[in-house]
Amino acid sequence: MDLMNGTDHAPETPTLKIKAFFESTPPLKDAAEIETKLKEFVNRNLLSENGKANRVVCVTSGGTTVPLEKRCVRYIDNFSSGHRGSASTEYFLKAGYSVIFLYRRGTCQPFCRSLPEDPLLECFTSTDDSNSQVDPSYAEVVKRAITENRSAVSRGFLLKLPFTTIFEYLQILQLIAVSLRSLGLSAMFYLAAAVSDFYVPWESMNDRNTTMTSAPKSQASYGRTIHKIQSGSGPLDMRLAQVPKMLYVLRNEWAPLAFCISFKLETDTDILLGKADMALKKYKMHMVVANELSTRKEEVIVVTEQEKITVRRDTTQLMADVEDPLINLVVDRHSAYINHSDA
Amino acid sequence: MDLMNGTDHAPETPTLKIKAFFESTPPLKDAAEIETKLKEFVNRNLLSENGKANRVVCVTSGGTTVPLEKRCVRYIDNFSSGHRGSASTEYFLKAGYSVIFLYRRGTCQPFCRSLPEDPLLECFTSTDDSNSQVDPSYAEVVKRAITENRSAVSRGFLLKLPFTTIFEYLQILQLIAVSLRSLGLSAMFYLAAAVSDFYVPWESMNDRNTTMTSAPKSQASYGRTIHKIQSGSGPLDMRLAQVPKMLYVLRNEWAPLAFCISFKLETDTDILLGKADMALKKYKMHMVVANELSTRKEEVIVVTEQEKITVRRDTTQLMADVEDPLINLVVDRHSAYINHSDA
Repeated sequence: MDLMNGTDHAPETPTLKIKAFFESTPPLKDAAEIETKLKEFVNRNLLSENGKANRVVCVTSGGTTVPLEKRCVRYIDNFSSGHRGSASTEYFLKAGYSVIFLYRRGTCQPFCRSLPEDPLLECFTSTDDSNSQVDPSYAEVVKRAITENRSAVSRGFLLKLPFTTIFEYLQILQLIAVSLRSLGLSAMFYLAAAVSDFYVPWESMNDRNTTMTSAPKSQASYGRTIHKIQSGSGPLDMRLAQVPKMLYVLRNEWAPLAFCISFKLETDTDILLGKADMALKKYKMHMVVANELSTRKEEVIVVTEQEKITVRRDTTQLMADVEDPLINLVVDRHSAYINHSDA
Repeated sequence: MDLMNGTDHAPETPTLKIKAFFESTPPLKDAAEIETKLKEFVNRNLLSENGKANRVVCVTSGGTTVPLEKRCVRYIDNFSSGHRGSASTEYFLKAGYSVIFLYRRGTCQPFCRSLPEDPLLECFTSTDDSNSQVDPSYAEVVKRAITENRSAVSRGFLLKLPFTTIFEYLQILQLIAVSLRSLGLSAMFYLAAAVSDFYVPWESMNDRNTTMTSAPKSQASYGRTIHKIQSGSGPLDMRLAQVPKMLYVLRNEWAPLAFCISFKLETDTDILLGKADMALKKYKMHMVVANELSTRKEEVIVVTEQEKITVRRDTTQLMADVEDPLINLVVDRHSAYINHSDA
């Protein structure tokens, strides 16, 4: 099956493209376990203390990888620290939302943003069998990380689901979307993850084995890219296929009632706003958060059908971040969306 | 300047290729600081307590990245947990070596192999301002991680230097090699890192900017790969150049007296041994450690000029690892190398 855009045999609709993509991806190993967790989490939030359903947001965070080999040693990665996703999760929890945190393994966790790179080795000075002494300069952030993160998880407000590859990410996102359908308008998708645009179709990949060491030079084509990963014969040509646009299917099929926010990252503001506008219309997003790479921690522009709103961090406060006012705005618009639909 | 193998204008010797590679790479940001640390570390080890120079090994660990953009969001990565490098470092320290641990940011640290993925959130149950309660099931590994790692660093036996990109890795490796020259035969290189074979020449890369969104389709060529990273126009073609073989220059110019061990990873044992043999001869390594992907935690084959030695972990012990007997063998051969040269 040919998964490519622009080739003769390409499936024609986004739905068919995604069906073909999923058919060719390796099955999710722990799908049953994830489904059970999601079911429990959604049920708990359908029956909250006040008798109404809680609002639930799925925050995606970090970057996806694209394996270049089946027994994967080499892969293409999208860098993202997960800072925005983890910070946003904290503010959503504060605003009373329950959060499904779909994050890249190893990236920043909620309430852990202020920790150093290697917290265990950098924050603790000594230890006996059951207690560890915390370096005083880190006492506050370590305390916050451990208590608030654990508390949100144990009280059932935070469900953390890790991914690594684009294949895992999209399959888990679908499971989440389908499970959140029962929440209707109260569900939100806040898609801050850096998702690969291109991938190597799984079925055209070879195992990392002898074929890697003896392939002849030839024109780039899917799969053959892998044969050619050997270090004795000049340059390496690779051809990657486009990842089908999942936003379309998310909005139209998986969770048509959910409030949907996607992200755009560029370095040129003019192009950025054009692309954000396009995503808004093409995928029927409710909001697109436009980031300029160099200023993304200071401000973002929120694009909706009616307006473009610049959201800035409070620069009078040293520790203030842009996610604080951003989540305020998002929650506000989600409320309006729910109320408008009720009317 | 053309950095390619097999093209008309390619520099002809490994030395020239590496010179060209370094001239085209972004300069190392903290080079001066690294040089100072190395100088102090080497001086301390030149004058040990017994009046003789300590043995010093540079252990490389984890995988290098290849940026696909100058303001890097996308990159190719070589997966490596850093388990072998960190385990080997522990055994070298135990054998009395001082270790320069050149590791990929975020990968496994010495004495931390048995910790869970996110130790801070998984090992600690509660905390007050200065103490954190350790989950009893993790008490032993947390204690070991904190005390032994800190102790090795504070007593001056362990110098940890992080890298991310192939450019950083090779530049820091050169600084280390040059600084270890004064140790002569007492220096060792144990090159366990998973180093990229292919890269995008820095000078041919564009900033992540408007060029990414408007390039026409065209044949793959260096740099143009970057222009084409946009998600609206079919497949992505990339062409990567070969990373020059640094082992040759390391052995012949940077540190000609040091004892050198490199690693080969494949999935087919026959091909593996052939490639290990080739590396041994081509780069004049003293040892090549041949790993088969699926069995690499159980056994490795050490290839020297005279012999092929299979090294296995002690399967009668649950926690025994292959690095324990491997480092025994390596230290033994390093001793013979020093003594033979003295004779």
